[in-house]
Amino acid sequence: MSPAAAPGDAERVAERLLSGGAEVEVASGAGRTVLVAAGEADAVPPLLPWEAFPGVERIVPLTAPFRFVSREYQAGRSVVRVGEAAIGGGGFTVIAGPCAVEGREQLWAAAEAVQAAGAAILRGDAFKPRTSPYSFQGLGRAGLELLVEARERFGLPFVAEVVDPRDVELVAGCADMIRIGSRNMSNFTLLAEAGRQPRPVMLKRGFTATIEEWLDAAEYIYKEGNSRIVLCERGIRTFEPQTRNTLDISAIPLAKSLSHLPVVVDPSHSAGRRDLVAPLTLAALAAGADGVMVDVHAAPETALVDGAQALHPAEFAALMERVRTLAAAL
Amino acid sequence: MSPAAAPGDAERVAERLLSGGAEVEVASGAGRTVLVAAGEADAVPPLLPWEAFPGVERIVPLTAPFRFVSREYQAGRSVVRVGEAAIGGGGFTVIAGPCAVEGREQLWAAAEAVQAAGAAILRGDAFKPRTSPYSFQGLGRAGLELLVEARERFGLPFVAEVVDPRDVELVAGCADMIRIGSRNMSNFTLLAEAGRQPRPVMLKRGFTATIEEWLDAAEYIYKEGNSRIVLCERGIRTFEPQTRNTLDISAIPLAKSLSHLPVVVDPSHSAGRRDLVAPLTLAALAAGADGVMVDVHAAPETALVDGAQALHPAEFAALMERVRTLAAAL
Amino acid sequence: MSPAAAPGDAERVAERLLSGGAEVEVASGAGRTVLVAAGEADAVPPLLPWEAFPGVERIVPLTAPFRFVSREYQAGRSVVRVGEAAIGGGGFTVIAGPCAVEGREQLWAAAEAVQAAGAAILRGDAFKPRTSPYSFQGLGRAGLELLVEARERFGLPFVAEVVDPRDVELVAGCADMIRIGSRNMSNFTLLAEAGRQPRPVMLKRGFTATIEEWLDAAEYIYKEGNSRIVLCERGIRTFEPQTRNTLDISAIPLAKSLSHLPVVVDPSHSAGRRDLVAPLTLAALAAGADGVMVDVHAAPETALVDGAQALHPAEFAALMERVRTLAAAL
Amino acid sequence: MSPAAAPGDAERVAERLLSGGAEVEVASGAGRTVLVAAGEADAVPPLLPWEAFPGVERIVPLTAPFRFVSREYQAGRSVVRVGEAAIGGGGFTVIAGPCAVEGREQLWAAAEAVQAAGAAILRGDAFKPRTSPYSFQGLGRAGLELLVEARERFGLPFVAEVVDPRDVELVAGCADMIRIGSRNMSNFTLLAEAGRQPRPVMLKRGFTATIEEWLDAAEYIYKEGNSRIVLCERGIRTFEPQTRNTLDISAIPLAKSLSHLPVVVDPSHSAGRRDLVAPLTLAALAAGADGVMVDVHAAPETALVDGAQALHPAEFAALMERVRTLAAAL
Repeated sequence: MSPAAAPGDAERVAERLLSGGAEVEVASGAGRTVLVAAGEADAVPPLLPWEAFPGVERIVPLTAPFRFVSREYQAGRSVVRVGEAAIGGGGFTVIAGPCAVEGREQLWAAAEAVQAAGAAILRGDAFKPRTSPYSFQGLGRAGLELLVEARERFGLPFVAEVVDPRDVELVAGCADMIRIGSRNMSNFTLLAEAGRQPRPVMLKRGFTATIEEWLDAAEYIYKEGNSRIVLCERGIRTFEPQTRNTLDISAIPLAKSLSHLPVVVDPSHSAGRRDLVAPLTLAALAAGADGVMVDVHAAPETALVDGAQALHPAEFAALMERVRTLAAAL
Repeated sequence: MSPAAAPGDAERVAERLLSGGAEVEVASGAGRTVLVAAGEADAVPPLLPWEAFPGVERIVPLTAPFRFVSREYQAGRSVVRVGEAAIGGGGFTVIAGPCAVEGREQLWAAAEAVQAAGAAILRGDAFKPRTSPYSFQGLGRAGLELLVEARERFGLPFVAEVVDPRDVELVAGCADMIRIGSRNMSNFTLLAEAGRQPRPVMLKRGFTATIEEWLDAAEYIYKEGNSRIVLCERGIRTFEPQTRNTLDISAIPLAKSLSHLPVVVDPSHSAGRRDLVAPLTLAALAAGADGVMVDVHAAPETALVDGAQALHPAEFAALMERVRTLAAAL
Repeated sequence: MSPAAAPGDAERVAERLLSGGAEVEVASGAGRTVLVAAGEADAVPPLLPWEAFPGVERIVPLTAPFRFVSREYQAGRSVVRVGEAAIGGGGFTVIAGPCAVEGREQLWAAAEAVQAAGAAILRGDAFKPRTSPYSFQGLGRAGLELLVEARERFGLPFVAEVVDPRDVELVAGCADMIRIGSRNMSNFTLLAEAGRQPRPVMLKRGFTATIEEWLDAAEYIYKEGNSRIVLCERGIRTFEPQTRNTLDISAIPLAKSLSHLPVVVDPSHSAGRRDLVAPLTLAALAAGADGVMVDVHAAPETALVDGAQALHPAEFAALMERVRTLAAAL
Repeated sequence: MSPAAAPGDAERVAERLLSGGAEVEVASGAGRTVLVAAGEADAVPPLLPWEAFPGVERIVPLTAPFRFVSREYQAGRSVVRVGEAAIGGGGFTVIAGPCAVEGREQLWAAAEAVQAAGAAILRGDAFKPRTSPYSFQGLGRAGLELLVEARERFGLPFVAEVVDPRDVELVAGCADMIRIGSRNMSNFTLLAEAGRQPRPVMLKRGFTATIEEWLDAAEYIYKEGNSRIVLCERGIRTFEPQTRNTLDISAIPLAKSLSHLPVVVDPSHSAGRRDLVAPLTLAALAAGADGVMVDVHAAPETALVDGAQALHPAEFAALMERVRTLAAAL
């Protein structure tokens, strides 16, 4: 309560809390009164406007609003199976491929390269959310069909982005894992649809979302019945102009201490620069990530999307060598 | 080009640009070579990965990617009609009402108060995007029906948020203006649907979007055929903890210098604090905004959403007085 | 306390607090224990590492660490006299002049223009903190002498920046008000020196400082004995690239609600663009600022520092007209 | 130039550039004119207000303003000797000790622990820049004397912060390396003094500084004659509240690609949390850092400064084991 609260203000708040089913304790000293409320998530809705009550100065939530994705709910770490591959459980899973599917030849070249170098899962998108309506938006259904062909040919499960709740069924019907992109992390109807289908879901952190908001978004998926969620850190927006976003390396141990879900990192979209992909991948591994997702393109200079950050196949193969050495040492 | 570019690197870039239909000029001096490319938006796609070409150091876009919403496309300022009201054209339009529709009595009380005090448009949402799945998500269709009733009773057109592309038809069938919220500013399929229906659209700035990204999002709507767009600045995410977001007051003159669309401000959601609504409203007016959108609730302490920022009817009426005085002086 | 705290953990914390002279109350419920400590600023040092105690989850400060500059310490608003002028007390004080003193002719032209248009205080710096060591660093002592001449000739008191604790005596011996720049807001030895001399001090907000840190910095000055402090908001660092910094317009009412000190705004350095100076000045006035500080230069295109943001004399005179009209209406 | 530039505007800019000793080339196409200027750092001062010239739309610097610290100036990597230790040159140097020197017993305990575990350099500060004037400010000269004693007893060189240009001689007279803290990174007079004395200087990145501004600050030191500079990344201010600052892991490879200076990381002050020190240290090593600086305190819960982030001696020893294993693998 504010030091200027009127007599009776604290009582009114306490009554309201009690009538809502919460327990309330009161502590005061040196002119300050603090109410501690405890109860079910629905009994003390953390966002109710207590600050609108006369005399209330500030609300400090003691517990996070998410539940199923928390380590309080499940102490052991989750392992998410994606086709024959798995994310979590102590290994370091490498997902790689082109940012966008542009055609059969392009996809073939990348898939062959990443499979040969040892990637476990293929990436490639058929739907791309682009800042400008004049940029390439993806091949849509045709792109998904190419990815299905590539899976058969190269034996790798694949992950693909979904950007519209009306496309969830289509993408989930083809892909081994669907992905919610950074710009859609707060698209709650899309999250709910992803929670109502059976494929695992990779949830990228919004580039302006706090870790708690990211876990709240995962809760939207889990609450609808789908517990197969992989968190993906991909950089946050800061004032530093040398990189597209700033990889929040601390988010790896933090998300793993707050949640039982596996955490991977996207060094390509974080930095937006090819020269940083290798150091950021190694840093993610050392910080405890369960894997990475890396853009690989056989001819980055002709890529329709994000070529400046894609590794050449040879660069990717060299990186895989270093990953294996480092993983063994850890 | 990089100072370390190989001979022939610049030529290869120039050839590619020319073959794509662009004009190219080359300037060099003191060991530096600069290529200036010009052409249609589709001839020199600004996001093509030139940085992936050997020898290219950096791309600097000279023009913004948006077109229809720019002042180059339309020099005169747009006026957007919303029912009997209008936004733009020199006036200062006040939109007010509860954040969320909670029931008939609550909506009646707020609508009556804002109408009496002189608001031109009613606000009230039936669908709420909430960070936590355990928070109140809105009354849905029933909420829209209450808003339609309120329009008849109080004679105010209303604006309501839409969060799912599948609901655009429903919301646009009821509301006088639909709104894309801050969290959905980069939900490109929702933007496109909003562009394919006839109602005006209020587009809130993403709280982590640059002004250019905001105008790119407006372009998505305009490009689909709907030119009736109102931009709404509502604060950006910064490190300052005293406010929920930091109102970017400079965005008002900047958006108006880059675009012909009207610009309004949401002081309630920017600050998240009732005590800042009045000074921010007056500042927005002085900085040249075409209007504001203000949360008003007859009993903020019982509001299910954002009560801490809602004005009491009496506070709102007092603010309207000050707005009228200031507007007359300006 | 953490829900996982061991029995005895809370007791150990309470004992330490009591032995340090604080009062302690304990509240618990639903598996949570909260300790509320109250006492003198030196009895419960807010930055002591309670989080290092076993079982402590989090510390939430209930009171701000600053004291003398707070409204709890002084309820009435401070007015700071600067020569014949005053800042605070209901008026709107305009400070104007060149960013840096470059020579007599340049200073004369600007001083004459701002005096004629109605500015109350002249600005002009002899010491400039510049990001690059290769940029113009100011005329030093010779610049101060020119400012003293200008004061005599044009009858305006002046404010000048000090960047080195060893120069405080020199600058304070010439200027009517000394200024601590944004980059030096956390230069605590400079703040302390400013607190030990008799001139008023303008304290610019660090462009990456929270409002609380800004008031903590003011406390450093006040604590040494100098209560004549003017706060100056000048924009904060955000991700928006169209402006040099983002003017935090909310900081005006917030700083005034937390502190009794007057608050002015620097629209020139916030935006770094001449076209935003007028709308930001009017917005600051409407939001309750006690004044502004504006860069004016008779030939901005030849300015050695920050010419892109300086108003021409005619632009400044036009702005002063609008300020007078708006101030009268408010 | 702006598309709306008047005829003659470009000529006027070109003339001014030529008269200042620069070379100028002009390229135009599709209604756009671009001037490319090249010359000495002092001939084309990058911060001159060209944007104030009529018709100029924007300035894009092609080269960074710093020179001596760049890899263009020195291609090979610098190694900085600190007493018997060295930073750079392929090893991974661990600096460890208490945040602040609080007394002989406390310093002895920490120094003995870090020496035994294999640290190469001791840290410990006698002068602390604190946000609040009511926080512990360090023991001053007495603290330095204790550090000198510790060096003799434990055989480790030490690094200590300097916060006032008037204390540079004192600190440099005792310490093996002086440190400029994050809050003083833009304290240019302090940087210049550090450049005029013979000890190596550790320059922490301002928590709100870009990488380019950090290197500009290093240039201030180098330009005065001191080339023995170690860069220290320590986190930047973002919107994420779970950590004090966000460690910018990308800054390690970026600073090393732009500069020949060694780069170390401070995981303790970045995160402000003990549980993140180990993962961030390992990530820094994997990303290519030349070392780390870690807070160690034998009794963190009694520390007067930053105890929540200090490792216990046993935690530090365990971390050193992991560092050695990982370094061997890399």
